[in-house]
Amino acid sequence: MAPSSAFASDNAAPAHPRALEAIASANDGYAPSYGNDPITERAADVLRGVFAAPDADVLFAFTGTAANVIALAAAVRPWHEILCSDVAHSLLDEAGGPVRLSGAQLTRLPSDDGIISPAELDARVVRRGEVHHSQPRIVTVTQSTENGRVWPAAELSEFIDHAHSLDLLVHVDGSRIANAIAALGVSPAEAIGDADIVTVGGTKNGMLFGDALLVRRPDQFEGIQFVQKQIGHLASKHRYVSAQFSAMLSDGVWLQSAAHANAMAARLSTGLTELGFSLATATEANEVFVKLDAEALTAVRSQFAIHQPDALAPVYRFVCSWATSEQDVDAVLDLLRGR
Amino acid sequence: MAPSSAFASDNAAPAHPRALEAIASANDGYAPSYGNDPITERAADVLRGVFAAPDADVLFAFTGTAANVIALAAAVRPWHEILCSDVAHSLLDEAGGPVRLSGAQLTRLPSDDGIISPAELDARVVRRGEVHHSQPRIVTVTQSTENGRVWPAAELSEFIDHAHSLDLLVHVDGSRIANAIAALGVSPAEAIGDADIVTVGGTKNGMLFGDALLVRRPDQFEGIQFVQKQIGHLASKHRYVSAQFSAMLSDGVWLQSAAHANAMAARLSTGLTELGFSLATATEANEVFVKLDAEALTAVRSQFAIHQPDALAPVYRFVCSWATSEQDVDAVLDLLRGR
Amino acid sequence: MAPSSAFASDNAAPAHPRALEAIASANDGYAPSYGNDPITERAADVLRGVFAAPDADVLFAFTGTAANVIALAAAVRPWHEILCSDVAHSLLDEAGGPVRLSGAQLTRLPSDDGIISPAELDARVVRRGEVHHSQPRIVTVTQSTENGRVWPAAELSEFIDHAHSLDLLVHVDGSRIANAIAALGVSPAEAIGDADIVTVGGTKNGMLFGDALLVRRPDQFEGIQFVQKQIGHLASKHRYVSAQFSAMLSDGVWLQSAAHANAMAARLSTGLTELGFSLATATEANEVFVKLDAEALTAVRSQFAIHQPDALAPVYRFVCSWATSEQDVDAVLDLLRGR
Amino acid sequence: MAPSSAFASDNAAPAHPRALEAIASANDGYAPSYGNDPITERAADVLRGVFAAPDADVLFAFTGTAANVIALAAAVRPWHEILCSDVAHSLLDEAGGPVRLSGAQLTRLPSDDGIISPAELDARVVRRGEVHHSQPRIVTVTQSTENGRVWPAAELSEFIDHAHSLDLLVHVDGSRIANAIAALGVSPAEAIGDADIVTVGGTKNGMLFGDALLVRRPDQFEGIQFVQKQIGHLASKHRYVSAQFSAMLSDGVWLQSAAHANAMAARLSTGLTELGFSLATATEANEVFVKLDAEALTAVRSQFAIHQPDALAPVYRFVCSWATSEQDVDAVLDLLRGR
Repeated sequence: MAPSSAFASDNAAPAHPRALEAIASANDGYAPSYGNDPITERAADVLRGVFAAPDADVLFAFTGTAANVIALAAAVRPWHEILCSDVAHSLLDEAGGPVRLSGAQLTRLPSDDGIISPAELDARVVRRGEVHHSQPRIVTVTQSTENGRVWPAAELSEFIDHAHSLDLLVHVDGSRIANAIAALGVSPAEAIGDADIVTVGGTKNGMLFGDALLVRRPDQFEGIQFVQKQIGHLASKHRYVSAQFSAMLSDGVWLQSAAHANAMAARLSTGLTELGFSLATATEANEVFVKLDAEALTAVRSQFAIHQPDALAPVYRFVCSWATSEQDVDAVLDLLRGR
Repeated sequence: MAPSSAFASDNAAPAHPRALEAIASANDGYAPSYGNDPITERAADVLRGVFAAPDADVLFAFTGTAANVIALAAAVRPWHEILCSDVAHSLLDEAGGPVRLSGAQLTRLPSDDGIISPAELDARVVRRGEVHHSQPRIVTVTQSTENGRVWPAAELSEFIDHAHSLDLLVHVDGSRIANAIAALGVSPAEAIGDADIVTVGGTKNGMLFGDALLVRRPDQFEGIQFVQKQIGHLASKHRYVSAQFSAMLSDGVWLQSAAHANAMAARLSTGLTELGFSLATATEANEVFVKLDAEALTAVRSQFAIHQPDALAPVYRFVCSWATSEQDVDAVLDLLRGR
Repeated sequence: MAPSSAFASDNAAPAHPRALEAIASANDGYAPSYGNDPITERAADVLRGVFAAPDADVLFAFTGTAANVIALAAAVRPWHEILCSDVAHSLLDEAGGPVRLSGAQLTRLPSDDGIISPAELDARVVRRGEVHHSQPRIVTVTQSTENGRVWPAAELSEFIDHAHSLDLLVHVDGSRIANAIAALGVSPAEAIGDADIVTVGGTKNGMLFGDALLVRRPDQFEGIQFVQKQIGHLASKHRYVSAQFSAMLSDGVWLQSAAHANAMAARLSTGLTELGFSLATATEANEVFVKLDAEALTAVRSQFAIHQPDALAPVYRFVCSWATSEQDVDAVLDLLRGR
Repeated sequence: MAPSSAFASDNAAPAHPRALEAIASANDGYAPSYGNDPITERAADVLRGVFAAPDADVLFAFTGTAANVIALAAAVRPWHEILCSDVAHSLLDEAGGPVRLSGAQLTRLPSDDGIISPAELDARVVRRGEVHHSQPRIVTVTQSTENGRVWPAAELSEFIDHAHSLDLLVHVDGSRIANAIAALGVSPAEAIGDADIVTVGGTKNGMLFGDALLVRRPDQFEGIQFVQKQIGHLASKHRYVSAQFSAMLSDGVWLQSAAHANAMAARLSTGLTELGFSLATATEANEVFVKLDAEALTAVRSQFAIHQPDALAPVYRFVCSWATSEQDVDAVLDLLRGR
């Protein structure tokens, strides 16, 4: 039997019943296409309400990679520079999409598991106005980070303010923003500071598909709707993506799901530590990065597919989702206990 | 009350129940992401079987625009030229996506409502090897065409063979390929000739979303999977797109749906003609293009949103889908009869 | 012996002595690089003066293709559309450079040998604001045209004003602007109307290399100096390109050279007509397009390399330059007379 | 009086008399354009001969940035990754041109003043075949480096062989290759190892303009001549760039010039050290990087413009050229001695 994908990623989970119901409900009669339907209008309002951003534009895309690519490509011209952390999804896991679409250099900054210090910005925002050098224009940060860390709300807010003081725009890749919000116990608006544009993740939160873009400074992302169209994310039957957002975000289901995923990660993390394993990064959201020896790895992989982010380091990743059960977690721990 | 979108486009229709059921069925337990799941594997096999293309690669994308852009961008390098008809969706309705992604010139050829004569290829495939001129590399044709016409199978096959003799690749934009197959009464393989790559439309056929790419000469589209990833169409939860293809294509539902849509268009077309209106193009698939005077237009638009493709010409488009009912058609005719 | 290139193109001519002297004079001691030298500063002033454009920015590039590509790429974002004539150099003879660099669709308009009627703009500037369609942003016209025609000053001025009224920018590809100015007998400013940006040709006028860009509305071409740098046209030893412009333009040598080239073309054109040959286009500047039968072609090509623009039509091009002599012209006529 | 540019860069020097004479000699009569002339043919042969590369293709460009951009853009498709050192000109001083043209990620590797260890390649050439990650395709190294260092011939050769073993192509940015050859005292072929493509610098060696590309594995750079054309470096009057290469390279003038520049740098470096200043990098070619305190800086800048590469570090660069005299060098030392 193939090993379970339960911990391979949060996108290995099935869709949350609420998301599927929303799609079924939306499947009723004719509707204007390309987002000009009432379901999409309402979903945009829900997003604006949740993030306390009444003047924001809202766009929907099918995937988080797409949302990131659209945001970054709309922000820059090809002589600009995009800054990101050294573990950014946009740098390492989007096959170069942001660079291809934007034509702009993507520069990695040193980080603490994805959390970048303002001083790193100072060190890189140089040679402004010099025609020989790409001009820094936007920095993208991830909340929660690719290494399972959560930016404290105040720290992210200060970072963003500092970026603004350097005349940089800020994109927050929130493919797991719900996990960050749930972990921080703050409002959605507080979890993203004064970011100019935010990828609001739906897929990893439990939707079948769909990540939204909250464009808080639309004048800085002129033409963004054309980018969305050009790369095939202006869904003709838009209601099936937008309906899920209304359903999951309007009464807190998305945060409950995220909190559950976080709790399962905490349970796993604690269990692993008790068994003597060392964490590679602190478990702050729904991901656990742990060092496993060969024997432990063999034991886990006998039943679970897990990801090794860096082929040169014996660190393995477990991702929990809305669907992860205590039994799933305990099954991993039992395998390790039983070695 | 807002006018009905019943005839605005086939993508204004709700999803076919079969597609929705397929998604619900697929929503069962964990599954490997990014297309490495058994549901996707099976769907690819179904597509290969339906098109009698055992050696083809199969990719899924969320939209037809995406499938077209991926196919064309993978086919060319930026000094190549892409040829298309003067009514091509890729030219007029993808916001320049194929050009942006490929960096290649897109050249329109005169056509008969989207049907291009081989002589037009001869006239444009010139200056081969000349460093001053973009080099023709691929021609894209649409089956059925944007103007509701269907390439006779033999004519398309000859066109493709002629293109091959000129050392051109051929892409078939089959966002409405099911309507063409149903109209022609031939096998799917016959309806696409010896095309090198085909967009197999799902969305307009009744899926919630999803168009596939059938890559029959994979060596000519090296790296195509990277393009799919870069623009956000390598769905993490791939099963929800692929499951629909299996459900709709495996037992002929897609062709029944298409045949129904074609029949409704024929009913409408006949009715309009009987009422004295002139068709702008022959009704050969599921679209009707008819000339309406101001009074007729006002009558129709009192209840139905319809599209005017060219602001300078009084021609209006009605699109039928799997969901169009005889009542819908007759309601239009009644409005016109009752003027 | 290889046939003479005397009529193959105006870029087959050697450089004008004045241009060579300017380079030799500039080769004196150290100078700041990348255009920050006094020779370049002066050349920019000369250009501003000649074109009565005191507020224009001036950039230099090594070639006309580069100047065109830089102008067009700076004008647009990748969802814009560039309009040009059906014989435009940017469309047919720059290997797709403008499209590659801009990512924007390049749409050809019907023309009378490169002269476009305002009505053609009206017909193409459609679907403004529609997210599905590339947005027209700039039209490029050529003065004198690729087919040897000259826009009458009033006609070009009206065309440009009409384009502006449609919210389009206008680029004038003036790789042979001197020939147009000389032919029209107007001031340089009159020959370019209210164009927003102009390629001022040096190479074909007699320089060793070098075309300038006169940017009359710099705010519409933000970042243009970065494009110049990115594609390698911010010469480090800038003085060698700019010195030529000062030398040729400051006291009218460029227009005398162009007038001479025009006169030689007129002499050839008249001679050919008298010999019974038909012109394919009117000879209005320094190029002659004439129909030659096989026998005549063989006679000419026994001594002169000449260009056939379209492999399917028996029309041949003779281009005259500052260096063309009456003897050169008469040698062609003698060959034809002696058949 | 403005400060002298004598040490600002080697491109602040005037052109070598031999280069200017070559241009004047080439200015004789008509010649086929776009490189199809005998002068260009001969220059290509000279380059092939000098580098013992009889099967190489040779292209000419106006600038080093252009040559680099053309080489890199032709080598990759937009899902590839380009590797370079952390001080690479292509990374820091080409305004993002290589990324814009290629659409590929450009990844910086740690280096010792531009000299990269093979182990750094091992650490970065990962995730081969993974669709989520850009695929490493080519590494570019600079000989001599941007920080004035010279790769020992054996070390460069081993690095290139190692890159090849990792299935990477190798580009050598040789904008100062003559300085490296002269410093190493090896043959040109030995100085570039088994590199696949080499930028052979002319401008900094003393030409008015012009860098060549030696394409030793043409099958890996398909279409490179189109890139050259697209960005405006297929000079119409090609002879003026190619003639300089013949003149400078055919009898060793280029290496004598480079050796002189190196000697002047050594003289300056020794003098600075004797005066108690610390070098920031070893002086191995024609560039000196030295730490200057505020007082020393003021003294130098009273008469000489010098470049500070990094605004955050008190290190200043002096570049010597074919034109640098002992008097120039001693004038700097006198200024510092006289503080």
